[in-house]
Amino acid sequence: MRKLDSLLAIAALDRAAQPNIQAAIDGKAKPLHALGRIEQLAVQLAIIQKTALPAVSQPHLLVFAGDHGLTRSGVAAYPSAVTVSMVDTLLSGRASANAFARVVGAQVSVIDSGVAADLSDRQGLIHAKIALGTNDACEVPAMSADQAVSALLAGADVAMQAIANGANLICLGEMGIGNSSSAALIIHRLAPAPLETCVGPGAGHSPEGLAHKYRVLAKAAARTDVNEPIDVLAQFGGYEIAMMAGALLACAKAGVAVIVDGVICSAAALIALRLAPQAHDYCIFAHASVEPGHKIIMDALGAKPLLNLGMRLGEGTGALLAIPLLQAACGLLSDVADLKDVLEGSA
Amino acid sequence: MRKLDSLLAIAALDRAAQPNIQAAIDGKAKPLHALGRIEQLAVQLAIIQKTALPAVSQPHLLVFAGDHGLTRSGVAAYPSAVTVSMVDTLLSGRASANAFARVVGAQVSVIDSGVAADLSDRQGLIHAKIALGTNDACEVPAMSADQAVSALLAGADVAMQAIANGANLICLGEMGIGNSSSAALIIHRLAPAPLETCVGPGAGHSPEGLAHKYRVLAKAAARTDVNEPIDVLAQFGGYEIAMMAGALLACAKAGVAVIVDGVICSAAALIALRLAPQAHDYCIFAHASVEPGHKIIMDALGAKPLLNLGMRLGEGTGALLAIPLLQAACGLLSDVADLKDVLEGSA
Repeated sequence: MRKLDSLLAIAALDRAAQPNIQAAIDGKAKPLHALGRIEQLAVQLAIIQKTALPAVSQPHLLVFAGDHGLTRSGVAAYPSAVTVSMVDTLLSGRASANAFARVVGAQVSVIDSGVAADLSDRQGLIHAKIALGTNDACEVPAMSADQAVSALLAGADVAMQAIANGANLICLGEMGIGNSSSAALIIHRLAPAPLETCVGPGAGHSPEGLAHKYRVLAKAAARTDVNEPIDVLAQFGGYEIAMMAGALLACAKAGVAVIVDGVICSAAALIALRLAPQAHDYCIFAHASVEPGHKIIMDALGAKPLLNLGMRLGEGTGALLAIPLLQAACGLLSDVADLKDVLEGSA
Repeated sequence: MRKLDSLLAIAALDRAAQPNIQAAIDGKAKPLHALGRIEQLAVQLAIIQKTALPAVSQPHLLVFAGDHGLTRSGVAAYPSAVTVSMVDTLLSGRASANAFARVVGAQVSVIDSGVAADLSDRQGLIHAKIALGTNDACEVPAMSADQAVSALLAGADVAMQAIANGANLICLGEMGIGNSSSAALIIHRLAPAPLETCVGPGAGHSPEGLAHKYRVLAKAAARTDVNEPIDVLAQFGGYEIAMMAGALLACAKAGVAVIVDGVICSAAALIALRLAPQAHDYCIFAHASVEPGHKIIMDALGAKPLLNLGMRLGEGTGALLAIPLLQAACGLLSDVADLKDVLEGSA
């Protein structure tokens, strides 16, 4: 646990420079506060990067993949095998996240966090598998506490490697059939909120399918009353969620901004920020998922996502679309004239 | 008027291919409709460009600048001279729009539509000045009907030139001290809506300043009861609004998608779409302005902006931030695997 303690020892963001950054923005050639949330992003990135001229450099999307034993109880509209197929699609550059990453100039890495298949032959995949999927949380804990901690630390390692390779902005994404079920249980316990408010259709469900999903999750929830972050993670899974939480914590510890995607990723952020609330300042919440649990997390964390485009795909697609907003924020600080120079020029 | 009639003779968008495009999107390796509004943009762009593989090529922001006689009645928080200063800042590449354009890879052109100063010596400026600012609409019509039509046609010419130069996506933006006053009067007459619901702080106002602005605009509105688009434009101005309306119509006529920015630009779109409703299908509404009139226009047009980042700057800044969303939509169609191939590959 010493490594976990070290990961969680995150310094609160030093906001001493914030008034100066805000003054610089207020002095730009535009009406006061006229760029709204872009200005807030500029302030956040400047104090994270400890410079008046922040920049986005080598943005890197980490897509963590894992399988969920809960699917054996029929919570998902797709079979678990689709996780492998989508890992292969991501590796071949032909998933939605790859297409979006090309648009915004981001690198994509795919991590086997716990896919229920042997992927050791996959080139380009980051091999960090903890187990061949989680156990069925309806019956037993999804993983052991040791596995949960191992997954958190492995996710942190992946993020630290991406940062060591030059990324100063990390996007988090995931792929895992059944993971909206794990997310719902995590939100239920850690927001906390009544389970029925946390369960949504995920990748797709009929009303009957959704009712079944809720009954299965209620059974899983009834099995245990844990409400501490690592216990909740171990009980309900999954490995990709654990690794996203660890990656987020590593970004905060390294002083690097991290973009949180939709509902699954936000459930991981909820775990991370219950473990280390001071990591919140390093997070940028990208997209408002249509999954009902997402708003519950945002309210619980006092966060407001940047985008609301009706997306519910995961893979980090929402996180990627926030990158240009951050680049615009950097451009505001680096490229826009000061109002006083503009007015002097015309006098 | 023959040229105007020709500009307004816009063919309704041929939607015959829409089911095929939607089927292609539905067949992609993702849950059905999981990319929300990105999918809708993909459909729109595909049918506008008449191809299953639309692309964004040489996106071009046109920033139209003009002055407003209404400022002599004290409607604006900044003096008219700021319009010239900001034109120079835009020309020097140091305005917010330039910074954002660099991020999204767009070209920027600045057009003198009716700035109240001689700018004939400005290099790089597109010279299309109709007059040295509008008249004070509080006292007399802002411009003549002939001037209104000339401005519409000049805006169309500017857009057609940008398209001829290779742009297949046009962003509209503006700069003009006082133009939120013209916009409020246009919205009031063409949405239509009670004037008091259309008046906002624009670039900035104290409560007293806002009350004065409303009294001035009420006086201007009381002077005339016109409610036809060109009459409203002539009565209330301004030249940059007229040219944005003309540019939008030219894009629709040329079969090119056009991104509408915030409230001033949307007031121009309201004029354009009251003149030629069939141009609506070519419009992409980018950003929800915090100005109250913006929502009135969106409701009147049945439109829903893509972004809501609390911005109220103009210059086309909101329009520019929508470009990556369109590029992502194109990437969905061109780069993402079909679900059937993905599932076969894993079988």
